[in-house]
Amino acid sequence: MTPPGSSTPPLPFSSDYVLGLADDALVSAQRMSWWISRAPELEEDLALANIGLDQLGQARTLLTYAGALEGAGRTEDDLAYLRDDREFRNVWLVERPQTDFGVTIARLLVFATYQAELYAALAASSDATLAGVAGKAVKEVAYHLDHARLWTLRLGDGTEVSHERMQAALDAEWPYVDELFTPVEGALVDPASLRDAVLGRVAAVVREATLEVPDVAPTVGGGRRGLHTEHLGHLLAEMQHLHRSHPGATW
Amino acid sequence: MTPPGSSTPPLPFSSDYVLGLADDALVSAQRMSWWISRAPELEEDLALANIGLDQLGQARTLLTYAGALEGAGRTEDDLAYLRDDREFRNVWLVERPQTDFGVTIARLLVFATYQAELYAALAASSDATLAGVAGKAVKEVAYHLDHARLWTLRLGDGTEVSHERMQAALDAEWPYVDELFTPVEGALVDPASLRDAVLGRVAAVVREATLEVPDVAPTVGGGRRGLHTEHLGHLLAEMQHLHRSHPGATW
Repeated sequence: MTPPGSSTPPLPFSSDYVLGLADDALVSAQRMSWWISRAPELEEDLALANIGLDQLGQARTLLTYAGALEGAGRTEDDLAYLRDDREFRNVWLVERPQTDFGVTIARLLVFATYQAELYAALAASSDATLAGVAGKAVKEVAYHLDHARLWTLRLGDGTEVSHERMQAALDAEWPYVDELFTPVEGALVDPASLRDAVLGRVAAVVREATLEVPDVAPTVGGGRRGLHTEHLGHLLAEMQHLHRSHPGATW
Repeated sequence: MTPPGSSTPPLPFSSDYVLGLADDALVSAQRMSWWISRAPELEEDLALANIGLDQLGQARTLLTYAGALEGAGRTEDDLAYLRDDREFRNVWLVERPQTDFGVTIARLLVFATYQAELYAALAASSDATLAGVAGKAVKEVAYHLDHARLWTLRLGDGTEVSHERMQAALDAEWPYVDELFTPVEGALVDPASLRDAVLGRVAAVVREATLEVPDVAPTVGGGRRGLHTEHLGHLLAEMQHLHRSHPGATW
């Protein structure tokens, strides 16, 4: 990864844009880790943990790149641990708690479909670094999406209770889907260009699972501008505590 | 993996013995997962998560085998989620909370060294299933041990503060080391036979890190007989809640 020198032409995208990609993955990874002691089966425990670790791996590379683009010498750890919530650029979809298994699956279905389309577009983009990250991530995300799809089918087309709870989970997540497609200044891939493909693919899985695509008004999330729900503050307090209480060293 | 049929000769070890091996790994994995949002560096977050997942993988195979040996039709999930604390066979070392980074490293140093010696002996044992599990696990554990050793050196031989905290962590863990070597009925590898090698290897790392081998009296832990500290009950409540509240199904 080559940080842009002063003599290279300006890149067609901003470090803030890359930070948004990184923060979506980072915050999602933290939420996913909540499940590690709590999934309904040991196999699922492992699966959700591995999905979270894939996202964390994506976040690390993207944070490092965002730091290089920014040119102020910030490392991945500086960006993960030393920013406050107003400096995070993730969407609201990923920052709310996911303590219901159905919500976790509904959210993963939407987020992995979004990431699948996003990374496919970035893999074909003009930036070698983002194309490289995305080319690797696209395979990981294909597995995440497959996992979410299989659970959506199993729960949606399962018992009456599981069907109802899966529908309720989709309904709860749906207002937050739209923010994924908010235009971002300095974007390499315009988020709005992903909307039709993502919504179409999600809707197809939802219907296959005998569920209904929710008909609810979108919430106007401000994550890309640093406006967050109170949940992100709590997540960051937990994630940043150890690092911040011993700055510059492990202790 | 072949469950023992009625015509096969009795195995030279008990299902309870295998359960002890499985529970050590399972409970340790759950404790390790606490760190996933909280490590001092993103890289460490990933490292501890992967160590926990290795342990969880070992636990799953061992639980499945223990269930087959027991012959009562219990699966890995039955054994993980439907036993109460009196039926768990893990040592106290792994069940106490590890919310201090030094404690996590001190415990991992001891536990990974113990597992390294244990799995090496099992890999050379007469039971094909345990030899197979151990042969795979021995490579994983070598990495865990290396990780614990490098952190012990970095902290022990680091700043004055890190040295003091690492020594305090070793002192706190030390009373629980002895239980690892408690004789167990029906053991394939006598735990007492591992004592000298484990303590010798741990002591060498401790001294290399300019730390002192603690001189504290051992606690008489009753984990192998199902007697546990209150911490295991809390851990199991969290781990088993979702599964138990929806028996026989995800929901």
